[in-house]
Amino acid sequence: MTPVVDGRPLRIALLGCGIVGSEVVRLLHDSAADLTARIGAPLELAGIAVRRPQRVRDLPVDPGLFTADAAGLVERDDVDIVVEVIGGIEPARALVLSALRRGRGVVTANKALLASDGATLYQAARSFGADLYFEASVAGAIPLLRPLRESLAGDRISRVLGIVNGTTNFVLTRMDETGAGFDEALDEATALGYAEADPSADIDGFDAAAKAAILAGIAFHTRIQVDQVHREGIADVTAADVASAAAMGCTVKLLAIAERSETDRSVGVRVHPAMIPRSHPLAGVREAFNAVFVEGAASGELMFYGRGAGGAPTAAAVMGDVVAVARNLLSGARGAGESAYADLRVRPMGETVTRYHVSLDVADKAGVLANVASVFAAHDVSIRVVRQEGHGDDATLVIVTHAATDAALAATVAALRDLDIVRAVASVMRVEGQDR
Amino acid sequence: MTPVVDGRPLRIALLGCGIVGSEVVRLLHDSAADLTARIGAPLELAGIAVRRPQRVRDLPVDPGLFTADAAGLVERDDVDIVVEVIGGIEPARALVLSALRRGRGVVTANKALLASDGATLYQAARSFGADLYFEASVAGAIPLLRPLRESLAGDRISRVLGIVNGTTNFVLTRMDETGAGFDEALDEATALGYAEADPSADIDGFDAAAKAAILAGIAFHTRIQVDQVHREGIADVTAADVASAAAMGCTVKLLAIAERSETDRSVGVRVHPAMIPRSHPLAGVREAFNAVFVEGAASGELMFYGRGAGGAPTAAAVMGDVVAVARNLLSGARGAGESAYADLRVRPMGETVTRYHVSLDVADKAGVLANVASVFAAHDVSIRVVRQEGHGDDATLVIVTHAATDAALAATVAALRDLDIVRAVASVMRVEGQDR
Repeated sequence: MTPVVDGRPLRIALLGCGIVGSEVVRLLHDSAADLTARIGAPLELAGIAVRRPQRVRDLPVDPGLFTADAAGLVERDDVDIVVEVIGGIEPARALVLSALRRGRGVVTANKALLASDGATLYQAARSFGADLYFEASVAGAIPLLRPLRESLAGDRISRVLGIVNGTTNFVLTRMDETGAGFDEALDEATALGYAEADPSADIDGFDAAAKAAILAGIAFHTRIQVDQVHREGIADVTAADVASAAAMGCTVKLLAIAERSETDRSVGVRVHPAMIPRSHPLAGVREAFNAVFVEGAASGELMFYGRGAGGAPTAAAVMGDVVAVARNLLSGARGAGESAYADLRVRPMGETVTRYHVSLDVADKAGVLANVASVFAAHDVSIRVVRQEGHGDDATLVIVTHAATDAALAATVAALRDLDIVRAVASVMRVEGQDR
Repeated sequence: MTPVVDGRPLRIALLGCGIVGSEVVRLLHDSAADLTARIGAPLELAGIAVRRPQRVRDLPVDPGLFTADAAGLVERDDVDIVVEVIGGIEPARALVLSALRRGRGVVTANKALLASDGATLYQAARSFGADLYFEASVAGAIPLLRPLRESLAGDRISRVLGIVNGTTNFVLTRMDETGAGFDEALDEATALGYAEADPSADIDGFDAAAKAAILAGIAFHTRIQVDQVHREGIADVTAADVASAAAMGCTVKLLAIAERSETDRSVGVRVHPAMIPRSHPLAGVREAFNAVFVEGAASGELMFYGRGAGGAPTAAAVMGDVVAVARNLLSGARGAGESAYADLRVRPMGETVTRYHVSLDVADKAGVLANVASVFAAHDVSIRVVRQEGHGDDATLVIVTHAATDAALAATVAALRDLDIVRAVASVMRVEGQDR
């Protein structure tokens, strides 16, 4: 790339001016002197694409910068950096591709776009010598993707465990700390603004799955699309599950997990609720905070913690990327592109090696445990702990297994459902974050 | 810089082959294929400078690479990157400067050198167009310095609170969890290899102070030298202090703190034991782990957690830097240099605004509290909590203050020592990590 002439302002096209875009405008204004000193040239807004340019906004910016013509703004010759904070697939995708094809540096917070079609974007960035940065797409303000891509580039990552959705973590924190049921906790999250009117994207794990795909791709140098991520949400987590977790010294979290197999060249990526020990660093991540726990062969255990959403935190991540792209433009350099050389197989959920916590409502009579245990044995699943709670008609058998494949565990549970002495399989939840 | 010719190996001079250097050699060997794919060219060892080149070492490397002539190795024309893991000031300083003057990229883990003479190194790097990376110098494997320099470059950091010394954190964790005294806990740390035979560098806070200087310099874009860091160690922390902290829902940690004043252009940097609430994310950082908590205006609260020492974790951080320098060499780019534009005043400890926890052995008679309270009032220090423990000759008065300047708090404590009714000031400790 040809370096930008030193000293002239670097001009930014901002696409979208909602919660995040407004904070980007504020940071550009409030931190102008610091940003200029850190970059070596001033940043300047070339234009702001919004749906309704006439709307009055309380922002420190010339109202004449607003335009409804996003495509035209991206095509302007005086734009150096395009910041996309519209979200969703289209028109964001077309605009980002248009920017990359013109060699503009692109900063985006768009997890859905990256997780569904990241390869196309990377390819365009490479072909046209443009920068593509997207730190804000996963875990908001937490510096995570660049450390994974750059600081940990000398190590081999074996596993990534993340709490990457604030809404579900808020709900599960409330259930854990107050004993509330799922509906009650979700109502509170909605009332406090932590959950949207239609909470499905969060509650059903779609948001976390997109982030898991992005994280896994970077950590394991392999293209991962969101439809390769096994996904389960938290809507079926009950107060009884949370109490049962507490009885084992655990708490329930919605985890995004990506792990490399130690025995073959494969990676598994999944999002589901899981019990983790209270002594695990992720267990202390409360309310709407996010954190990502990384296990590296040489680094050992690392955790990155902070605010995963919100206007200002997300805008801070966007601005960190803008500074990087600006520095690159000034020095004629380019940031790291796609790294997918490892090209690992993405293994199906059934091959995942994990542990289960199973609660069974059983008839309280002789031979129940022997019958249940023989079902586990028949599927080669080894039992780690059995605990009986209550008796008579209220008897519950709680079983925690040793590690086995998810397929074997699922088949065991299916067979348990067929046992006469098992009145109901009250709950099944995976257990993570313990030594294998 | 002229890009290195694509495809030819990038050659590394390794200075030092102790615990960290040996792991660097192993990572270069074991991850050779991954490193080549990530960088775009192979890495190759040009030579390894050690004191005793003849010594037999169990390392996957040609014994002919070892040399006692470190200066000669750095001067060789076929060296692209110099990795310095000798530690200490000399000869590390002269070797690093020699490398930078030849335009070699330098990766160092040397906190003492950076904290005492970082400005000279940065200056040489700038003058000769060389890279200077030192992620491993603070908090071992934790990606911290580059995220601060790069990912958070769009935000304004207000405070950094770190547990950056594993030895002291191990000792304090043991004191907190077992009720052990300082000597007993230190003996255990020594027996387990967490403390050195002469533990002064750790226990007295010298190690943490060097790291605090580096962190503060990067976070606040200001040159900070280690002699500008207020330093207190943990040798005077008693089992009674730890118990008293527990009674207030706190734990004792050795903190490295750097904070910007909100009212003037100044920064304070200090290392001392402090009580922090158990609900603070740093409180859960146990044993030899490190963590750094960062508060940013837009980002909010962030924390970076992981192993702060040890051969493999430190080598992982070194290798992350090697990959960055190698990528820069291939693309003809250069990483971020010194950023000291803010040039904030470093304020003396007396101006620090903090809170104290004070334990007084007092005579148990009428008027004691009134007398003590009047001393605080005379120094404009507001009392937040008073608690009396025991009675008769064993009466202890525990006072926790509101925020005040450290000078006012110190003067208050001096005046308390002069009161007849105060038999002894049993302990004084700062309280951090609570809302002001």
